[in-house]
Amino acid sequence: MKGLLAWWEGRCAASKFLRFVDVTLRGIGQVMFQDNPLSGLLFFIAIGWGSYAADVTQVAVGGFVAVVVATLMAYWLRVDEAGLRAGLYGFNAYLVGLALATFMTPSTMMWVYVVLGGAVSVVVMLAVSNVLKTWGVSALTAPFVLTAWLLLFATNVFSNLDGGALPPVGRIAPIDPAAADPLHVGEFVGGVFTSITQVFLKGYGPAAALLLAGLAVNSFASAIFALVGAVVGVVTAHLLGAESELVIAGLLGFNPVLTAIALGAVFYRPGVRVVAYTLLATVLSVIVQGTMMAVLTPFGIPTLTAAFVLVTWLFLLPGLKLE
Amino acid sequence: MKGLLAWWEGRCAASKFLRFVDVTLRGIGQVMFQDNPLSGLLFFIAIGWGSYAADVTQVAVGGFVAVVVATLMAYWLRVDEAGLRAGLYGFNAYLVGLALATFMTPSTMMWVYVVLGGAVSVVVMLAVSNVLKTWGVSALTAPFVLTAWLLLFATNVFSNLDGGALPPVGRIAPIDPAAADPLHVGEFVGGVFTSITQVFLKGYGPAAALLLAGLAVNSFASAIFALVGAVVGVVTAHLLGAESELVIAGLLGFNPVLTAIALGAVFYRPGVRVVAYTLLATVLSVIVQGTMMAVLTPFGIPTLTAAFVLVTWLFLLPGLKLE
Amino acid sequence: MKGLLAWWEGRCAASKFLRFVDVTLRGIGQVMFQDNPLSGLLFFIAIGWGSYAADVTQVAVGGFVAVVVATLMAYWLRVDEAGLRAGLYGFNAYLVGLALATFMTPSTMMWVYVVLGGAVSVVVMLAVSNVLKTWGVSALTAPFVLTAWLLLFATNVFSNLDGGALPPVGRIAPIDPAAADPLHVGEFVGGVFTSITQVFLKGYGPAAALLLAGLAVNSFASAIFALVGAVVGVVTAHLLGAESELVIAGLLGFNPVLTAIALGAVFYRPGVRVVAYTLLATVLSVIVQGTMMAVLTPFGIPTLTAAFVLVTWLFLLPGLKLE
Repeated sequence: MKGLLAWWEGRCAASKFLRFVDVTLRGIGQVMFQDNPLSGLLFFIAIGWGSYAADVTQVAVGGFVAVVVATLMAYWLRVDEAGLRAGLYGFNAYLVGLALATFMTPSTMMWVYVVLGGAVSVVVMLAVSNVLKTWGVSALTAPFVLTAWLLLFATNVFSNLDGGALPPVGRIAPIDPAAADPLHVGEFVGGVFTSITQVFLKGYGPAAALLLAGLAVNSFASAIFALVGAVVGVVTAHLLGAESELVIAGLLGFNPVLTAIALGAVFYRPGVRVVAYTLLATVLSVIVQGTMMAVLTPFGIPTLTAAFVLVTWLFLLPGLKLE
Repeated sequence: MKGLLAWWEGRCAASKFLRFVDVTLRGIGQVMFQDNPLSGLLFFIAIGWGSYAADVTQVAVGGFVAVVVATLMAYWLRVDEAGLRAGLYGFNAYLVGLALATFMTPSTMMWVYVVLGGAVSVVVMLAVSNVLKTWGVSALTAPFVLTAWLLLFATNVFSNLDGGALPPVGRIAPIDPAAADPLHVGEFVGGVFTSITQVFLKGYGPAAALLLAGLAVNSFASAIFALVGAVVGVVTAHLLGAESELVIAGLLGFNPVLTAIALGAVFYRPGVRVVAYTLLATVLSVIVQGTMMAVLTPFGIPTLTAAFVLVTWLFLLPGLKLE
Repeated sequence: MKGLLAWWEGRCAASKFLRFVDVTLRGIGQVMFQDNPLSGLLFFIAIGWGSYAADVTQVAVGGFVAVVVATLMAYWLRVDEAGLRAGLYGFNAYLVGLALATFMTPSTMMWVYVVLGGAVSVVVMLAVSNVLKTWGVSALTAPFVLTAWLLLFATNVFSNLDGGALPPVGRIAPIDPAAADPLHVGEFVGGVFTSITQVFLKGYGPAAALLLAGLAVNSFASAIFALVGAVVGVVTAHLLGAESELVIAGLLGFNPVLTAIALGAVFYRPGVRVVAYTLLATVLSVIVQGTMMAVLTPFGIPTLTAAFVLVTWLFLLPGLKLE
């Protein structure tokens, strides 16, 4: 693996085009914190597969267009070379592209929007990172969430923008959740896998294998914590009485997946105290996701990864020494 | 008094268990900014009395469980010794426990939630404090408000969590307030006292005597400003035309009480300019409480002490020299 | 022009009253970033004219009262002399006064509110500035937006406060915008001019001439960018399919006007890269204004300049070197 990456790095050093490809792939890899072009490639294939399977190929294309635009924008803005090389200006754009193409009806204006979203996400990433630098905390996917919200919500006001697949705007009313049905083994396993693919807004279990492989090639611990986060997410949501349909679709599990990777394998080194701290944050991510859904659903706005961002910030900001 | 506290401090120095009791009581005292175990004890008795009188003993127990869990959590996280000893990691948890047990229907899951809320409130306190340190401003009860909101709102989504006593979720509609009735002397005095007890989410006037005593044993100025805040709160709300029922229940007065103590007696030394500045902030707290109610009521979420936190931050952040 | 200003400065140095007048006028000038008493005077006349034409003279008076109160408050709080002299503690108050007198029905309580708003806006300005100093970013009109929201929303709860001209509070519902009608030349020009006057909450095209003159006497680039912002705002909103009524009234154009001046002429020196960066932000301001409308309309709250503040912060915070 190391040899392969060294060979690739040599090729990139010799070709501007390959460097651009490398930066773009790392951008996709950074959605799950992996600064590795092979991780990015595996994620990219997984999302393409998931989009194809759901007959929404434009979603994978939307993510691709946005991450390419963002990489160009980052070059144009002359951002810091190290961050750019590591893909830090690409992952939010990739998610913005996936989100816009998921929630909007395809049209010329949607593609204009994808390009705009990719470009703007770089500025937002720079802004959020600069603010958080004060406390030594990472922007996570906050730029994605903020950019997507700012763009998606406007579709309610402008008649040439069609947010057709957004949750329906309705009145604020008691959600009155149905009692949870018992989860069968198949449903449990399905919920765990879709919790992982929903990180990329896809509810397609089989693609989780590729995503886990993409994690494992760069960081075995990340793959383990992704799986642990998914299991904790599904179990917690079920015990709290979430509607089984939501649990099986992975919609209450993707935030815990990201929280578990971030705290357990990226910002801390694994250890007993770190694992306990990570599990507390992972459980809290499920609850906060519920709160976000209750607040945002009446506005017809998807929660995206806001719960992960908020909880992980709260657990990173104390700057604790847990190791 | 000083002799008593010195004797107690000696006992605590010799016993880990008494030290734990001391830290827990100071945690309760810090709800109203008093780093004094006797204040905490008086507050604790007052809330127990108020809960018993309203036949909701589980509320007082909920606060107690949460503050104990938080103190244990603070030890486990190895927070700064001075802050821990002063009860800074307990007061938010105590309020979280009271709030969860007030707004949720008692059940096993509610007690799990109280334990979780106590533990999480410590992390949130560390996070918020670390951010605000940049500007030399205190976290106030923001960690309580944030933790309680994140947990309470999720009860709308998970069927095993029952937020039965939360305000009913309804559609956003003109509140169309009834005109204020004239306030009789008895109602005025009642409103002043319940404004003080509502700091702890209790609408039970007699307990205010114990709370004022708890303030006075540590800081006479704090007791005076609590009373001034309550009077200003009731008068302002009435003049602005608030529904008398809300005024008499103290629901528009507890934020002004906290604002007045914080600015008048804790973060500034009393003086003519400080008093004028504090009065402006106290009046504004009533208005902002109105705004918070208008924004949050449709979501079925209580405003808690958010108005106090916001206004006091706005008046502390300028870092003015008023003395 | 320079001679006139030097002569005036001499008079101000000799008279406390004229200095007060000077500071107040600069406060009005700073609404559009102009530290120049003549700009302020021209803006003041323009708003008086617009208010008179719409038969709401109390709006101009409200702005005047608030800015005078704020200047007195700033002296009383002993804020930094340089900022005070430059009018930095006046512009938010002026806008708060205009907003309160625009959205509330005239009454004694409204005037109390205007005085309160003027005073509070100074504290909020100090608070926001102190926070943003950390990243070298200006408060812009955020103190205006925050103060006005905190005060206006409470009118829904207190029966003696009448927010009669606020948008009606309603249920959250699909806005279902009408398709845009073709814009005739006259409507296009009208929309451009009202986009400029709406910076001061006035939809009165002719007054735009005075506002542009007020900009040009101090900064020709600011006048140009104001015009460019208005044109971009009208064109973008129209292409996105905004209701023509909104576009013609300037309601989707005033945020772009402010964004264009701020980024194009105030915080950066004009240049090719700066112009491209400014245009991106200006277009985004239109979209974010749409998002703000969609979020806030159901609460019956006007969006004010929140879109400008948010977008300009996002584009200033990266601290990019574009020149």
